Amino acid sequence: MNYLMILYILGSVLKFEAVFLLLPAVVGFIYGESSGLYFLGAAILSLVCGMILGHKKPEEMMLYTREGFVSVALSWIIMSVFGALPMCLCGDIPFYVDALFETISGFTTTGASICTNVEILTHATQFWRSFTHWIGGMGVFVFIMAILPMMGGSTMNLMKAESPGPSVSKLVPHVKDTAKILYGMYIILTVAEIGTLIMFGMPLFDSLITTFGTVGTGGFGIKCDSIAPYSPALQIIVTIFMILSGINYSAYFLVMTRKFKEVFEIEEVRWYLGVILGSSLIIAVNIHHIYGAWGNSLRHSFFQVASIITTTGYATADFDQWPMLSKTILVLLMFMGACAGSTGGGIKVSRLIILSRSVKKELSLIIHPREIKKIRMDGHVIEHEVLRNTNVFLVIYFMILFISVLLISVDDFSFTTNFTAVVSAINNIGPGLDMVGPTGSFAEFGAFSKFVLMFDMLAGRLELFPVMVMLMPATWRGRESK
Amino acid sequence: MNYLMILYILGSVLKFEAVFLLLPAVVGFIYGESSGLYFLGAAILSLVCGMILGHKKPEEMMLYTREGFVSVALSWIIMSVFGALPMCLCGDIPFYVDALFETISGFTTTGASICTNVEILTHATQFWRSFTHWIGGMGVFVFIMAILPMMGGSTMNLMKAESPGPSVSKLVPHVKDTAKILYGMYIILTVAEIGTLIMFGMPLFDSLITTFGTVGTGGFGIKCDSIAPYSPALQIIVTIFMILSGINYSAYFLVMTRKFKEVFEIEEVRWYLGVILGSSLIIAVNIHHIYGAWGNSLRHSFFQVASIITTTGYATADFDQWPMLSKTILVLLMFMGACAGSTGGGIKVSRLIILSRSVKKELSLIIHPREIKKIRMDGHVIEHEVLRNTNVFLVIYFMILFISVLLISVDDFSFTTNFTAVVSAINNIGPGLDMVGPTGSFAEFGAFSKFVLMFDMLAGRLELFPVMVMLMPATWRGRESK
Repeated sequence: MNYLMILYILGSVLKFEAVFLLLPAVVGFIYGESSGLYFLGAAILSLVCGMILGHKKPEEMMLYTREGFVSVALSWIIMSVFGALPMCLCGDIPFYVDALFETISGFTTTGASICTNVEILTHATQFWRSFTHWIGGMGVFVFIMAILPMMGGSTMNLMKAESPGPSVSKLVPHVKDTAKILYGMYIILTVAEIGTLIMFGMPLFDSLITTFGTVGTGGFGIKCDSIAPYSPALQIIVTIFMILSGINYSAYFLVMTRKFKEVFEIEEVRWYLGVILGSSLIIAVNIHHIYGAWGNSLRHSFFQVASIITTTGYATADFDQWPMLSKTILVLLMFMGACAGSTGGGIKVSRLIILSRSVKKELSLIIHPREIKKIRMDGHVIEHEVLRNTNVFLVIYFMILFISVLLISVDDFSFTTNFTAVVSAINNIGPGLDMVGPTGSFAEFGAFSKFVLMFDMLAGRLELFPVMVMLMPATWRGRESK
Repeated sequence: MNYLMILYILGSVLKFEAVFLLLPAVVGFIYGESSGLYFLGAAILSLVCGMILGHKKPEEMMLYTREGFVSVALSWIIMSVFGALPMCLCGDIPFYVDALFETISGFTTTGASICTNVEILTHATQFWRSFTHWIGGMGVFVFIMAILPMMGGSTMNLMKAESPGPSVSKLVPHVKDTAKILYGMYIILTVAEIGTLIMFGMPLFDSLITTFGTVGTGGFGIKCDSIAPYSPALQIIVTIFMILSGINYSAYFLVMTRKFKEVFEIEEVRWYLGVILGSSLIIAVNIHHIYGAWGNSLRHSFFQVASIITTTGYATADFDQWPMLSKTILVLLMFMGACAGSTGGGIKVSRLIILSRSVKKELSLIIHPREIKKIRMDGHVIEHEVLRNTNVFLVIYFMILFISVLLISVDDFSFTTNFTAVVSAINNIGPGLDMVGPTGSFAEFGAFSKFVLMFDMLAGRLELFPVMVMLMPATWRGRESK
């Protein structure tokens, strides 16, 4: 293991976090809150620790895959450890474990909260929680790479560990340029949503918060009723931007390069939009008797479906009160998640396409044993390695899911609560059903269960492998691997 | 498709079922119940239909894999369709859909019941429900093959479709001899349990019923409280025979051939026994406050664990009232299931061993990319084909599971009820949690949901592929495949 290089990377991450922490400090000063000072203090602490960790530039800058994976996993943990400090010290979230839960939930764009009343938090804390969504959405390494040519030739291994989806497609030959383009599109989407929300009457602060949660597919809000208190027009705008945020960013790159036809040929995007449409219509019919007017049922069904499938987690209605059919659709959409290469979590539509095609191929092989068939997506043959990786992903996914449900069952809450809490955490959604429904919170879980759920959120956001590699004893054994 | 041959096979199955149906008829006559007449009538009807279907012996006796799979799936359906008739006509289960549910639940060794009070059923019906467990446990084709040299060279394709486990290991070179040995061991186990139960004071009729449910890993009983009304000694005997019934039958073959050392080297058996021991001890501690004495907690925990992991479904306690940790362990054991090559259902211990080793291999590959590693079990390399098949199995499994949970949610019962009902059906267990807990029943589900659960039970018992192949349109297209 190239320990020096890993420390150097952790140092860079902390320095960047110091800069990020200045923003809530500024917010605090604007609103005249003392909590701003704590954020300033945390920024200084991060900077100092970052400089200590990174003071020695390693001679060997090369990173092997496992080192890249471990660096990313540790970076996300250390970011959260420092990011939780100010929220705890300023008194907004008195217990550190809770603050850590909230920060990990923020960075991983989960949006599961231990706050029973978010409206009493200071503006600085409200801003920071939501801003972690924005940082975590596109990824901190993508950000660092877009700015610094830091790691020589081994940046791909960092990006591979942080980017969602079964395979990282470089949009352009250089990783650095890809990172710049990704953040460019991310910023355009961010600015567009803030502008539109303000135009339709949302206050500036609310627009920033809501947008960070939308484009990062996070879901933290500043109202106890999430997005419900805003006007129907604003709810519809958020719906649209949630759906846009769940689309593979390479689609936007095609738009930017004027390849419009190819956008609609991306099978993942077609399936994604099709599922949103289908699910929303079924739910609208199913909840019609609750809301009376079709306009309301459609608005609520589209909002909740978009919120869940993109793993955002905002709510305009307490779907825990809906009929079981609608609830079950939402739980299944939690598993599905958004498109690969978006900021959303979940298993990802493309993985499900690959898996269902592998089923079809296997069955065809029983029916026509001599047939030679390849699995394709968007016209390309799916490599054996991608398929194998997808299968193993699924096994690890259900392994973590079931073991987590078992571990948190020690708190003796209902099976529905435990199951949907874990599903919500590992897929980076936010709300679940029952106790962790849209109007509930994760506050009542014990510290042990909270750590289990934190692990699930990190594992889910980093697509399982980095966290698993970090946990393998073989990773830490001395022998240099090539 | 060799339609003539499929009809011929269906005919044979019905003829065998006619013989099986005579047994409950005899029971009915012994107890002087008019229901016996209905079973006699059903036997005659089965015989006549069997003779009509099978009157023309096909010239081409060869079966390709898909034809074998389709034959087995259709045979299990037709057996259930005829087997349900007498229970419905005699008035014990007035609605045919319910009777069909009960029969499929019986043949698939699930043991999920729509009866709210089994004690009012006639003896003939009670016998038949449980006897279907015994037939379905080892498999009707294994039975037919043990007796008739029916299908020339293509018997392997029938056995492959009916036997549980990722791969069929022939104990001896000939399928017919393997089938004979399997049924021989099955009968020894059956007789041994009946004898022991009678010796410890259980009435003959109860012993027969209890044994059919145990060795077939079914779970239908004749008391509303399942095995709870019997003495602790009898409960312990049933526990032991349940555990024995979940062991790979090739282990017994090794015992028969005096290879004792090799028995304990079967990794699946070691894991299986280890999981039973570990889970039972944890649950015993977790439920100790309910039962007071350690003897009682251990008896109940071992019984329930053995019952669930072997997918039998008997109960001595209402585990729906246990703490969530114990309930969650039981739900996870539902997924695991027993050993491959036993009469139990579930994913099977060996599949989980293979899958967890594929995860370990993939992670090792990230850590040491140049390493060449093979997945082994019991010292043998797991073939690529078995691994691929296991992966696809898992995908189909969760696909069916989640779609079923969605479909039955139309009845608007709780998420816990729906989820555990499907898990219980697809893994051929019997009880679940909440409404379908040990003291509940499947009676309240609507007809649509019942059909979904019937499908799940069949799919689970036949290990998914035969049922999936039957549903593929490509299977039924004219072109002959080789």
